[in-house]
Amino acid sequence: MKPFEKTEYLARLKNAKAHMAKEGIEILLVTDPANMNYLSGYDGWSFYVHQLLIVAGEQEEPIWIGRAQDANGAKVTTFLDHKNIIGYQDDYVQSKVKHPMDFVSDLLKSRGWDKRTVGIETDNYYFTGACLDSLRKNLPNTKLKDATSLVNWVRVIKSPRELEYMRQAARIMEKVMQTAIDKVSPGVRQCDAVADILSAQTRGTAEYGGDYASIVPLLPTGIGSSAPHLTWSDEKFATGAGTILELAAVRHRYHCPMARTVYLGKPPQKMVDAAKVVVEGLTAALAAAKSGTTAEEVEGAWRATIAKSGIKKDSRIGYSTGLNYPPDWGEHTISLRPGDKTVLKPDMTIHCIPGIWLDDWGIEISECFRVTDKGGEPFCGFPRQLFVKA
Amino acid sequence: MKPFEKTEYLARLKNAKAHMAKEGIEILLVTDPANMNYLSGYDGWSFYVHQLLIVAGEQEEPIWIGRAQDANGAKVTTFLDHKNIIGYQDDYVQSKVKHPMDFVSDLLKSRGWDKRTVGIETDNYYFTGACLDSLRKNLPNTKLKDATSLVNWVRVIKSPRELEYMRQAARIMEKVMQTAIDKVSPGVRQCDAVADILSAQTRGTAEYGGDYASIVPLLPTGIGSSAPHLTWSDEKFATGAGTILELAAVRHRYHCPMARTVYLGKPPQKMVDAAKVVVEGLTAALAAAKSGTTAEEVEGAWRATIAKSGIKKDSRIGYSTGLNYPPDWGEHTISLRPGDKTVLKPDMTIHCIPGIWLDDWGIEISECFRVTDKGGEPFCGFPRQLFVKA
Repeated sequence: MKPFEKTEYLARLKNAKAHMAKEGIEILLVTDPANMNYLSGYDGWSFYVHQLLIVAGEQEEPIWIGRAQDANGAKVTTFLDHKNIIGYQDDYVQSKVKHPMDFVSDLLKSRGWDKRTVGIETDNYYFTGACLDSLRKNLPNTKLKDATSLVNWVRVIKSPRELEYMRQAARIMEKVMQTAIDKVSPGVRQCDAVADILSAQTRGTAEYGGDYASIVPLLPTGIGSSAPHLTWSDEKFATGAGTILELAAVRHRYHCPMARTVYLGKPPQKMVDAAKVVVEGLTAALAAAKSGTTAEEVEGAWRATIAKSGIKKDSRIGYSTGLNYPPDWGEHTISLRPGDKTVLKPDMTIHCIPGIWLDDWGIEISECFRVTDKGGEPFCGFPRQLFVKA
Repeated sequence: MKPFEKTEYLARLKNAKAHMAKEGIEILLVTDPANMNYLSGYDGWSFYVHQLLIVAGEQEEPIWIGRAQDANGAKVTTFLDHKNIIGYQDDYVQSKVKHPMDFVSDLLKSRGWDKRTVGIETDNYYFTGACLDSLRKNLPNTKLKDATSLVNWVRVIKSPRELEYMRQAARIMEKVMQTAIDKVSPGVRQCDAVADILSAQTRGTAEYGGDYASIVPLLPTGIGSSAPHLTWSDEKFATGAGTILELAAVRHRYHCPMARTVYLGKPPQKMVDAAKVVVEGLTAALAAAKSGTTAEEVEGAWRATIAKSGIKKDSRIGYSTGLNYPPDWGEHTISLRPGDKTVLKPDMTIHCIPGIWLDDWGIEISECFRVTDKGGEPFCGFPRQLFVKA
């Protein structure tokens, strides 16, 4: 029933503890839902209340702490011994007088862990300023050390089982993108196209169903395509406009994202030209993404290819992806941009998405790929082009 | 095209500034995406990077700050003058060496606002510990004051237009719940039922399309129904099990949530009895929810009604709802629980969801309602019962 064997979770914990030791961290508070899932299997939409894992170097299993009503969910989805699943009372939830992190401090003190160096994911969505202040107030003598992305970096190379889930997601993704391209047509309401896209994402294939994506379908259209993160409305798609489709399919929280652009009618020449340049640059980046290359060198291959076109792009062209929860499917480790000197290794997984957004139009054509000795191997087999529909 | 007139945004800003003044806050940093939307209209899935509004008492319009590539989205969706839309460079994104809040501090200093009392939403998902530390480091002489939920409380009474969107959401919600009850059947994969639910949510009605809900469909089934926040799998629904359906429909980010429970086969007597008690208690709570009553008195009416049944519930039975973004559709103000002395006022909107989760089963039957002088007026007209399917 569980997506991974207990042995895989234990191996991940061992790796995480090695990273902790290298940073001088003895106790790690894991608040990132993806990191919680990675280290324990925990899976539920409960991250809207405070929850975390405590990973202690000397203890094999982490401790899950969350709202009492979610403890059953932890029993169902994690490999943890039930003694390591601890719920806090409901009056901690969104209270002005007590904070769930106060409860965590009490537990750290009861085990003597407040005397240790405690790692915290300072810049994670689910570790708020109030979490930080609660720990500082309750644990004045504890050494708190930033551990943002520590576990994310443990996750950066995917196991065979993780890659298998991403491949399954890719099979779903191909169906999702075909659905999207089919449905975006003149006179169709945006919301109706998205209804079919969400349905395809979730239905998956006959062999395996789809999980929810950490970002809803993004399909900015017309002038909106100059703004990459707008969501849909009731407006109808119109002839003479481009629509960017930035979508993902998911298996057991593992994402395979993909972007394509569709134009209704005869596209302007500048858009046809831009599509050609983006595909060339993307293909060059994929060829460059061999193990041993750095992230910034991959971006450099893109940059060199498009240099002659006059198109400029100041934002990163890709990021690590795989396991995540809302609001992001990026894994917050590798960025394909100047200055990122991460050396690529086999089975890292990256979404290369060199989006171009100009004043009143934009274009995106992307690939999610696995790093190999020979270059980036795309998960999906889907035409890499601007789609034009009459 | 915009869901509200500029005059409504300006009235909201005036109210927010009055709340700020009462708290001695001169400059407010608004990081909650729902609060950003409420005060400016901003709407996009860009909250996975740092962004905020700066509300200054003396300046009519707030300033939007976000990633440069999202500035076009702010131009499309807000009423703001373009000079008040400021993008930061892409190398601030997920960087180890610079933080977007450093950029914000520079801006505050350039306007002399670092000499003022600055309010921060300390316990918001999108105000991380790193945001707090960046401000403290860059603005050592600034008085930072907690303003968590300050704007949320400004939002607590809904305007006619807001209520209209919630009523539209309710019309969609009735269709969504009927779809869910129809689709949950023996032998149907959970993912296929959810595909149809998401499709119904998004398609909406012929008059108006649906927006995305801030929480994905929750439909724990069988033993999973003892855990309220589990999401779906590929497993098939089975005869002899209950399934909780906790769903919402949304218009322009305004939610109308609803929960029902469906049983496949002949339900055990304990579940039939529990459903009866929950409906009685919910009905009593709705009757009690008149303007002038306190939140805890509404909970007391529920508690008194179920007291004789032997059912106990330690968690809150409801919360304010309406405008929100993932990960929550609750508005983080009112909780229907002992100790919450909020006095209800007309046009407050609340989701009363007295969920019961026992060791190996659970039940939820809920109503989203508007406070009136006569009691809670449900947005939806949908049978308030346990649904039983052969």
